[in-house]
Amino acid sequence: MLVNSSMTESVRLSIAEVHELAVRVLSHNGMSEAHANAIAKVIAAGQRDECHSHGVYRLLVTTHTLRKGKVSGTAEPVVHDRSPAIVAVDARFAFSQLAFEVGSKVLVEKARNVGIAALAINNCFHFSALWPEVEWLAEQGLAAMALTPSHAWVAPAGGSRPALGTNPVAFGWPRQGDFPYVFDFATSAAARGEIELHRRAGTEIPLGWGVDASGLPTADPSAVVNGGAMLTFGGHKGSALSTMVELLAGPLIGDLTSLDSLALDDGAGGTPCHGELIVAFDPKHFGLGDGPGDAARAERLFSAITDQGARLPSQRRFEARTRSQSEGFFIPQALYSDVLALLR
Amino acid sequence: MLVNSSMTESVRLSIAEVHELAVRVLSHNGMSEAHANAIAKVIAAGQRDECHSHGVYRLLVTTHTLRKGKVSGTAEPVVHDRSPAIVAVDARFAFSQLAFEVGSKVLVEKARNVGIAALAINNCFHFSALWPEVEWLAEQGLAAMALTPSHAWVAPAGGSRPALGTNPVAFGWPRQGDFPYVFDFATSAAARGEIELHRRAGTEIPLGWGVDASGLPTADPSAVVNGGAMLTFGGHKGSALSTMVELLAGPLIGDLTSLDSLALDDGAGGTPCHGELIVAFDPKHFGLGDGPGDAARAERLFSAITDQGARLPSQRRFEARTRSQSEGFFIPQALYSDVLALLR
Repeated sequence: MLVNSSMTESVRLSIAEVHELAVRVLSHNGMSEAHANAIAKVIAAGQRDECHSHGVYRLLVTTHTLRKGKVSGTAEPVVHDRSPAIVAVDARFAFSQLAFEVGSKVLVEKARNVGIAALAINNCFHFSALWPEVEWLAEQGLAAMALTPSHAWVAPAGGSRPALGTNPVAFGWPRQGDFPYVFDFATSAAARGEIELHRRAGTEIPLGWGVDASGLPTADPSAVVNGGAMLTFGGHKGSALSTMVELLAGPLIGDLTSLDSLALDDGAGGTPCHGELIVAFDPKHFGLGDGPGDAARAERLFSAITDQGARLPSQRRFEARTRSQSEGFFIPQALYSDVLALLR
Repeated sequence: MLVNSSMTESVRLSIAEVHELAVRVLSHNGMSEAHANAIAKVIAAGQRDECHSHGVYRLLVTTHTLRKGKVSGTAEPVVHDRSPAIVAVDARFAFSQLAFEVGSKVLVEKARNVGIAALAINNCFHFSALWPEVEWLAEQGLAAMALTPSHAWVAPAGGSRPALGTNPVAFGWPRQGDFPYVFDFATSAAARGEIELHRRAGTEIPLGWGVDASGLPTADPSAVVNGGAMLTFGGHKGSALSTMVELLAGPLIGDLTSLDSLALDDGAGGTPCHGELIVAFDPKHFGLGDGPGDAARAERLFSAITDQGARLPSQRRFEARTRSQSEGFFIPQALYSDVLALLR
């Protein structure tokens, strides 16, 4: 750790220092070592990639939720081996990360054995991005898709009242070289957190992000959050995709929809509690025997995108990672102090 | 068949009559009975549901392609049982429908056995919508997702040159009652056929559908088709989703991307030739033992959408189907004559 004199309001940390800080804070607040480590990993990864809302800042939210006692900090996930192609993990109302860590090892084995496999996580409190999960699976040589509902904040296309969650879809594809191909997007037009940030800052949101309580388009973030609704991206297509997330990561796996999750929360404003579905594909089982040729075809697609100056998803994140790994990163002194206060 | 006197330019046909007509036309033009029947089924279903571009009209295109000799009308699909969770079908450069018919039976078995399974179709000429496939799987009690590339006509977000296909994503969910929950959308902002229709009619297209050869937004359909590019729906999110379709239904299964497919076509303007991926999920394997409760949660989601006056995807199609089943449907006399001419 190093306080930069030219940026007196910032603190420079390394990835390892953030990890260690996260483990200390979470353990101090009653979390088991296994849970603390699993969560510290994704928080350090978020900060490393400059996804600030999923970085050090998350320690405040996570600790707050933990202290309220709604989330278990110690429940050990229980693995159910359902079939040669399905593993389910009961997170037992703890955060999702440890359940993923435990279940994903079984998922990888199954995908390697039979070519396609699914990991269903049940009863988890879910706050993290999905890219760390599909990215890890891609690093194991698997293509992967991850889906999870959230709270019902989002109106379906053609409607104006919440029925859907922000319902992210993430996808990873293994590549040679430093980074896999990864995307992770909310099926809502904007993230809930972006609207919250505008609300706190008193700034307007773009039209298309949400409607007010009377169903009219609004630039007022408070009107969206108080009685209005967020909108999906991409009109009826984004809305349809969002229902797929609800159904596959909800009722299919015996878990809640975003409507159910919000009802369960009952106005407490807590982290959504529901399920998650991850599907992994092993190219070795699917291909026709020409693995290098298949990989080359995928690379030609990526080149056709980047050669015309378009970005691949996650490109910015990978650039931040490269910087963080050599230089560490700065976090605001105020945030750092708030986090240290959680150790008292 | 009945010529309506009040609509002298139309011919009324029943679903069975369209099926029979399609079989006659295709067989007369050298297609095997098995292929003709499989294609007649989807053409009759398209007309029944008033998806006109996938109905009787398709007989003209299909027969034309067949007569040019590029597509095999007789090649029997070869089934490869790859694993307890994967079946691959080599369509051997015939149309996709028979390969699906043969492979989907194995897919259903595998999904019922291990809970999740995939059908990869290789080397198929593909012109049909994907909803008949996921709908049929939903009728077997399975949730299902289907993906296929096409020709590279679509620019990625941030770019202006084609790299992606129109890449549809279809999804089905089993429901009690008359119809499953089904959607099927192109990841391009509009279907290729819609732009073609505007071009023929000499009408403008909405901004957002495409760019001209210099990469600028255009309302001129000819500028999009000649040297320009179509755009994806939903900006960078729709573009990302489209890459997932390319990768999973292309290189993953050892088959072509839309770039490869267009290169193979080499300017002939033919039907795309590539692969397709269908993933099926059996709720019985995934759920936690409360099937009726899970189904009820899905139904509450559908009600939350329809109760506010929003439509479910496919609702219009199902309404058309109900009409067609009791009353048959009208097709233009000119189209009917063109189709009959294919029997000469």
